[in-house]
Amino acid sequence: MDINSFDRYLTENRERLLEDYKDFLRQPSVAATGEGMAEMAALVARRLAGLGATVELSPTAPGAPPVVWAELGDGPRTLLIYNHYDVQPAEPLDLWESPPWEPTLREGKLFARGALDDKGELVTRIHAIEAWLKTQGPLPCRIKWLIEGEEEISSPHLHDWVARHREKVVGADGCLWEFGGFDEEGRPEHTLGVKGICYVELHASAVSHDLHSSMAALAPNAAWRLIWALNTIKGPDEKILIDHYYDAVRAPTEAELAVLRELPFDAAREAALKDKWGVGGFVTGVEGFDAIKRLYFQPTATVCGVSSGWEGAGAKTVLPARAMCKIDFRLVPDLTPEIVVDLLRKHLDRRGFQDIEIRLLGGYRSALSDVNAPVVKAAARAAERVYGRAPVRILLSPGSGPMWTLSEYIGGVPVVCAGIGHPDSRVHSPNEHVILANYERGMRFIGALIDEFARP
Amino acid sequence: MDINSFDRYLTENRERLLEDYKDFLRQPSVAATGEGMAEMAALVARRLAGLGATVELSPTAPGAPPVVWAELGDGPRTLLIYNHYDVQPAEPLDLWESPPWEPTLREGKLFARGALDDKGELVTRIHAIEAWLKTQGPLPCRIKWLIEGEEEISSPHLHDWVARHREKVVGADGCLWEFGGFDEEGRPEHTLGVKGICYVELHASAVSHDLHSSMAALAPNAAWRLIWALNTIKGPDEKILIDHYYDAVRAPTEAELAVLRELPFDAAREAALKDKWGVGGFVTGVEGFDAIKRLYFQPTATVCGVSSGWEGAGAKTVLPARAMCKIDFRLVPDLTPEIVVDLLRKHLDRRGFQDIEIRLLGGYRSALSDVNAPVVKAAARAAERVYGRAPVRILLSPGSGPMWTLSEYIGGVPVVCAGIGHPDSRVHSPNEHVILANYERGMRFIGALIDEFARP
Repeated sequence: MDINSFDRYLTENRERLLEDYKDFLRQPSVAATGEGMAEMAALVARRLAGLGATVELSPTAPGAPPVVWAELGDGPRTLLIYNHYDVQPAEPLDLWESPPWEPTLREGKLFARGALDDKGELVTRIHAIEAWLKTQGPLPCRIKWLIEGEEEISSPHLHDWVARHREKVVGADGCLWEFGGFDEEGRPEHTLGVKGICYVELHASAVSHDLHSSMAALAPNAAWRLIWALNTIKGPDEKILIDHYYDAVRAPTEAELAVLRELPFDAAREAALKDKWGVGGFVTGVEGFDAIKRLYFQPTATVCGVSSGWEGAGAKTVLPARAMCKIDFRLVPDLTPEIVVDLLRKHLDRRGFQDIEIRLLGGYRSALSDVNAPVVKAAARAAERVYGRAPVRILLSPGSGPMWTLSEYIGGVPVVCAGIGHPDSRVHSPNEHVILANYERGMRFIGALIDEFARP
Repeated sequence: MDINSFDRYLTENRERLLEDYKDFLRQPSVAATGEGMAEMAALVARRLAGLGATVELSPTAPGAPPVVWAELGDGPRTLLIYNHYDVQPAEPLDLWESPPWEPTLREGKLFARGALDDKGELVTRIHAIEAWLKTQGPLPCRIKWLIEGEEEISSPHLHDWVARHREKVVGADGCLWEFGGFDEEGRPEHTLGVKGICYVELHASAVSHDLHSSMAALAPNAAWRLIWALNTIKGPDEKILIDHYYDAVRAPTEAELAVLRELPFDAAREAALKDKWGVGGFVTGVEGFDAIKRLYFQPTATVCGVSSGWEGAGAKTVLPARAMCKIDFRLVPDLTPEIVVDLLRKHLDRRGFQDIEIRLLGGYRSALSDVNAPVVKAAARAAERVYGRAPVRILLSPGSGPMWTLSEYIGGVPVVCAGIGHPDSRVHSPNEHVILANYERGMRFIGALIDEFARP
């Protein structure tokens, strides 16, 4: 690989590529509401076709966003790339310093919903491949690229899609995942697995219609029912109280603990994280290596939203007929979404909460790669070339994704996550942004990764 | 009183009066949001001035809706009338069969927000007095009329207003309250007291901004904090768990229990109520006279609304930084709002919930009249004349209101509640309505009440 011509191309085309990046960000694509999904899929497909790829807009389910599937390049090895073109909702809008759908540069950072997650990652890869093709010639490996539109709502149709298109997806030698980035000290982080997730809504309904709250001495209240049910799921000591929940959780192996111990998580870094969150301590008072073990190998139960009755200004005296709550369970090996829903149903029933309905909105299993796989090593060498240092290795990211479907499920493809994020990127929050220097370094990293991975 | 000419006037002016009623309903006046309050106050004042009353739009607090104060008539006795011109919010709008601000007649019923509570009651009284003046001559008693604009948000400024205008308000021989009506079998109900209320918001905040939910193994969650705090306030056995709460609750006296026993609450009526609510039983499984005692003499703690995190469609994986809940405590003698807030603060602090903020949105004390007061007896005689039967007496309505301020506080003025509602009026809910026949009988009742009350 001739890095000089590659770099020169990026420098000479800087403004045009940045404008292209912004085009991706100006197009809303909120999977949770459906806003802009079709337009975004078309934009991605158009851009990949521009690289000379064979591109397919492949349906998933009626009314659901399609998978964009692209194939390009040729060589002895095949790299599978996974990205997604959907983003989280932008709300609450009033906390954004610039509008979420108008990408805005401030102090070397590009602000917009999706600036990083995941349009920033996708654009970095597209631009790097463009630069390769314009300066190095044909790609030295085969790339299969899967860009889905439902990652932010737990990829409800991806697994079925892969099952139906197994012949396209199998046979990759390694997979580059959608996220990644740098830690507080700027060290590249490579993640080799993800926690699973099980996302449910709980619905309580108590009376046929909202009543005047003066009837509360006799009429049941859906909000109270939901609160009492939730309280049986997790208590103030943060232990998940669902019967037999921890029976399905395996302890980390000695080898896994050894990799965890390499993590550069010192007192200063811990203090900085607490500071960023504005908290005096972590939950349960956990500290140091115990906090690391908890973050990477403990399951969670997170109330992501609650809604019932009158939520506007002032004092409406109403007894709510309905109440709703969203819960996100993060899963470590060997918990699965199926186990969680089954245990939760039995747990609620046993406590008299048969009236609480569980709706499964989506779920993934956890996944974990071999630390010595070729794609993992190629990424490490590329990081050393571009960033001048070995990556910090994270075994099991607390973030979730459908990695299991594109690794174990299709024959044990090893996966590495390497991207352009940084710890204050505000992913999923107002003021999401990317540091432009990371995007620029990230394109060089993708070039180097292709170069390293393609070698026998 | 010449009832024939009174009736004839109502019949001959039926359409015009109904149109006037609708004018009141077309004007939104939502105290919780402030919508239409100034316009509504002006409309009420104009209409009362049309009766020849001396009318004053009297300020309460900067930016808050004024009290409409009117005086008319003369005679040995003075009747104080209390109404309110504000209404509850109309939401949820999609459950209304006709738009809430377009009064619509269907099957002898008039549907609109405020059709009963309280514009229906106010209009009935205005129209009855108009008919009296047009057919009987001058009023035989003095009427002092207080119509406030903040009843539905717990009358935050009424008490101060009465304190500042004590000279206007004192000296009444009895008071006619804003609500009332008929029971399931059409018997008139006269209520002689109300429960108090204490309406608070609880606010939890845990981290400085919403986080990605993958951080939940370490970061505190405002929604969970609020759920755990709420769970210490009331449990599934419906007992309020705030320390020392029941110390402040007095038991009903034998005399009060005797009046409760007169209530026509039989098995059929109990079954009908459960049916209407769509429930198999009341909370705690209470039945019969125990249900009556619970409804009238037990305090309540009602979650009226909860809000946190992502409440829209789909699965947003967010860890909420903030959570809010509204609670309405209904108070029996001798609980007061001041006692509730004090006990709640200490209770939460003792359990480690110092971080949960309590905001008092409003409150009333409870009030209870003497069953033998002249205004109570006059109302009973008027009910017998117009409805042909003695009223069912209710000591302590589970609905709340600022009755204490207009009874005990101004020297012990006895109060009676007598109105035009029926049990399925859907007050505070979608499809609020009045049975037109009750409005028509209600005007005759007001005429008879004036006649009975004015006699020495």
